[in-house]
Amino acid sequence: MNITPDYLTKVSIELLQTAGVGLKEAGLVAETLVTAELRGVPTHGINLLPAVFDRIAAGQMEVPTKLKVISDEQAATHIDGGNGFGQTAAAEGMQRSIEKARSFGIGFSLIRNTNNVGLLAYYSMMAAKAGTIGICACNGAASMAPWGGAEPFFGTNPFSLAAPAGSGNPVVLDMSTTVVARGKIRRAERLKEQIPLGWALDAGGAPTKDPIAAMQGTLMPLGEYKGYGMAFFIDLICGLLSGSSYSRAVRTFHQPEGPTGVGVMTIAIDISRFMPLGNFSKLIDEHIRTIRGSVKAKGQNRIYLPGEIEAELESLNITRGVAVDAPVVKAIDDLLEKRGLSMRLKDGEVRV
Amino acid sequence: MNITPDYLTKVSIELLQTAGVGLKEAGLVAETLVTAELRGVPTHGINLLPAVFDRIAAGQMEVPTKLKVISDEQAATHIDGGNGFGQTAAAEGMQRSIEKARSFGIGFSLIRNTNNVGLLAYYSMMAAKAGTIGICACNGAASMAPWGGAEPFFGTNPFSLAAPAGSGNPVVLDMSTTVVARGKIRRAERLKEQIPLGWALDAGGAPTKDPIAAMQGTLMPLGEYKGYGMAFFIDLICGLLSGSSYSRAVRTFHQPEGPTGVGVMTIAIDISRFMPLGNFSKLIDEHIRTIRGSVKAKGQNRIYLPGEIEAELESLNITRGVAVDAPVVKAIDDLLEKRGLSMRLKDGEVRV
Repeated sequence: MNITPDYLTKVSIELLQTAGVGLKEAGLVAETLVTAELRGVPTHGINLLPAVFDRIAAGQMEVPTKLKVISDEQAATHIDGGNGFGQTAAAEGMQRSIEKARSFGIGFSLIRNTNNVGLLAYYSMMAAKAGTIGICACNGAASMAPWGGAEPFFGTNPFSLAAPAGSGNPVVLDMSTTVVARGKIRRAERLKEQIPLGWALDAGGAPTKDPIAAMQGTLMPLGEYKGYGMAFFIDLICGLLSGSSYSRAVRTFHQPEGPTGVGVMTIAIDISRFMPLGNFSKLIDEHIRTIRGSVKAKGQNRIYLPGEIEAELESLNITRGVAVDAPVVKAIDDLLEKRGLSMRLKDGEVRV
Repeated sequence: MNITPDYLTKVSIELLQTAGVGLKEAGLVAETLVTAELRGVPTHGINLLPAVFDRIAAGQMEVPTKLKVISDEQAATHIDGGNGFGQTAAAEGMQRSIEKARSFGIGFSLIRNTNNVGLLAYYSMMAAKAGTIGICACNGAASMAPWGGAEPFFGTNPFSLAAPAGSGNPVVLDMSTTVVARGKIRRAERLKEQIPLGWALDAGGAPTKDPIAAMQGTLMPLGEYKGYGMAFFIDLICGLLSGSSYSRAVRTFHQPEGPTGVGVMTIAIDISRFMPLGNFSKLIDEHIRTIRGSVKAKGQNRIYLPGEIEAELESLNITRGVAVDAPVVKAIDDLLEKRGLSMRLKDGEVRV
């Protein structure tokens, strides 16, 4: 079923408001969820809403989000996320990093005690839109073993970078430090599909194509010791240093087994410290043209910039609507009913 | 031939001094080269010395290094490396980042117009030894194609992170954004060995086991679009933003085909902003014990921390000496002769 993004936003906001979330915060959370759907990352999309309500019902998430600034001096900010929305905390962290970048050349925020932030690229793109280079990362529930190990220990611990790209969309990288993100396996499980070998090991440490076995085992780190090292340092900074949970203590957002304890870091680098933003735009425009014009591999007729596939999908999906999987449609409609709202996703269907 | 690290240091310093490099700078460069040898990364070791002299002879490198500070305000520094030693520039950048981290919570330096920095982990470990978390990266000569492309465009663009680890050695990640670093292929070429499939493509875009064909083709990015994205952003920050060379304009250090135009970034994050260093040490010690104690994969009897294999090799090599390949021994001895020095590497051989 293809739903208009405006309707998905409306549904998300109305749902969140039934939980006492104010319009401003509900709007931000809805925007990150719908941006994820538009950019083809449904694992960070509206399927997070039922989990939010399960957490709230279990008394394991505090809404509306009450952030507490632990310290904010010179270029660094330390925030306690109050076990609220990760989206609210990450956006606040990046906003402060951007402001600090303008004053100090670089800004850095560490956030402890928050939850799933959804689409990490949302926050790095905030920085890019503000004329800075954005970097962010977060830890997550244990799903990857240390290299040489067989026990889930680190999350997929993703990170994202974004920079403004002159006349075009920002360039954006948003990647997990595992071969694939856990959400892709969860989605295969939901759709009853197999996963390729090389994504995960089962609980006994053997390669598996079965998403259920994979969810009970471990995800393979990207590039063996390299992905392990990246996940280790992201956990160290976002989790241990921030005073949040880390390694096996971080809990999944998808079952209400206690506060997740997610930690987040955001960095913004002021471009104009190093060259006028206009020069940067000109150089990067030309750079992008050169990349596009470089020799293609056999069978390829186009070279994409980082984040370009997602940006094109976003444009396309704004028009044709977001394709929502049947199980997610059912989950959201069930939630709407439970929250006493009469709207249903089909009311927002795009008519072709 | 196993050579004592002290002798390798002495040889490096004496050689560099014949080119007019002062004792302090020669000592720093020698220390990075020998640290690379000790840690099992000979591609960033003394085999760089003949290339240094070829560059100086060709008038394509300025020694002693004259750094120029373009700007140094609040938390950010911008340095011109004066086409001198990358080691000197990167160490200065990280030193300033560390000092700024103490004052501002985070410090950031961008360096343009420098050369090969050797072992990147050297600079991140500087930060770790100073009680900060160090991050550094640099660009390099084109060897990786954009994902979907077949033309060398980005360097292996490595990055490194390090953090102090309580009672033990710092934890350190130092990785290229390609499946392997170019030096590994160059070394296979020198030793007339084959390389595994999956490391590189030949000039026509086909997988190859031949290091010579690989050097004429492209290196595979780590994790396909992920390595491409990481290399893209490292090039963007270290090269384009710093005002240095980027993409195809960066030249290899190994042939004197013009200034390399390498750019470097260094970041230091002050741990004590977020928790007392003593707490951090205690937590990370315990964290490391937990990782070591976690379930091993089949056939594994030990889990290593990031950088631990290199640190153990360093301890071992300090005692048993550094095994130097025959072609490198010859190259260094030839250089010693050419520079009018009577010392030879065998004079530093470890007697067993």
